[in-house]
Amino acid sequence: MKFCSECGAGINIQIPPGDDRQRYVCNHCGFIHYQNPRIVAGSLPVWKDQILLCRRAIEPRYGLWTLPAGFMELGETTLEAAIRETREEANARIQIKGLYVVINLPEVNQVYMMFRAELLNLDFGPGTESLDVRLCREADIPWDELAFGTIRHTLNYYFNDRREGAFPLHMGDIVKEGDHFSYRSSS
Amino acid sequence: MKFCSECGAGINIQIPPGDDRQRYVCNHCGFIHYQNPRIVAGSLPVWKDQILLCRRAIEPRYGLWTLPAGFMELGETTLEAAIRETREEANARIQIKGLYVVINLPEVNQVYMMFRAELLNLDFGPGTESLDVRLCREADIPWDELAFGTIRHTLNYYFNDRREGAFPLHMGDIVKEGDHFSYRSSS
Repeated sequence: MKFCSECGAGINIQIPPGDDRQRYVCNHCGFIHYQNPRIVAGSLPVWKDQILLCRRAIEPRYGLWTLPAGFMELGETTLEAAIRETREEANARIQIKGLYVVINLPEVNQVYMMFRAELLNLDFGPGTESLDVRLCREADIPWDELAFGTIRHTLNYYFNDRREGAFPLHMGDIVKEGDHFSYRSSS
Repeated sequence: MKFCSECGAGINIQIPPGDDRQRYVCNHCGFIHYQNPRIVAGSLPVWKDQILLCRRAIEPRYGLWTLPAGFMELGETTLEAAIRETREEANARIQIKGLYVVINLPEVNQVYMMFRAELLNLDFGPGTESLDVRLCREADIPWDELAFGTIRHTLNYYFNDRREGAFPLHMGDIVKEGDHFSYRSSS
């Protein structure tokens, strides 16, 4: 951020009066440009013993497999965002069963909110952001070709919980430790 | 938004190629300025049969009562945000028990994430954003002087669940219907 989006003047980084952290502040009009983490909303669409996975047609992680998920938009709820992303990426219709996994990624300023869902029918297929969409049994999950840690943890939780027969909310963080990222559960 | 924060040129509202909704796009450098909802993280601090409430010293809703909560910052997790807001607004230390209430407010592009928490000691008091901080029994909650619907719903859930002896996750939306706002549960 170099220019004020309100008046076009130059931007300073400074701690505004009454605040305790650095913000982008306009030299001219004084506007404070706050920045905040974003929500990635998605679904875990289940059909009998299978999960719907999408193969990414976009960067990052082109060609790798993921659950349908994406940035929540203005004017929608987290459920609506998860349903929309599932429709956009997999042309699939789901019924949401509940919030299932929340993962904080403070390093990239994202919060994943993944909903457990039932696939309503087998009428699905790749949207413009997917190369392929496929139903996978647990034994067929491409664990080494998953796009994101968040997706791996969500799938792991699901298959463990399915064996237990209960699906409580899970929460955790993916945090940087030295030169690698690690997962810590917080629920 | 009137100017590009990257190059200072004028901004257009248009649908970028491959997108399906209007964005702020720079005429000059082509930068797309996405906007997304923000997370409000907070806590429900419990001490025996009492709840910690803060009386707001800032707008909006100056003078009304709230639970400690505020916008999640870059670089933190939702739990860290809830703990920080509780320390800032009430000078209080808490132990998080779990995510308890998620409320979408699509009209104002916010998602409330409220955590159930235990107050660790009675060493608390108003921070700069609070006029007063007080422990309240259920009978003493100032229901007509609460700052936000999200706070009222969170407290209602808590007192009902306390009678039942279980605290499942609750999720809902506050949506505009005609000229008023109403709450719909989604869990």
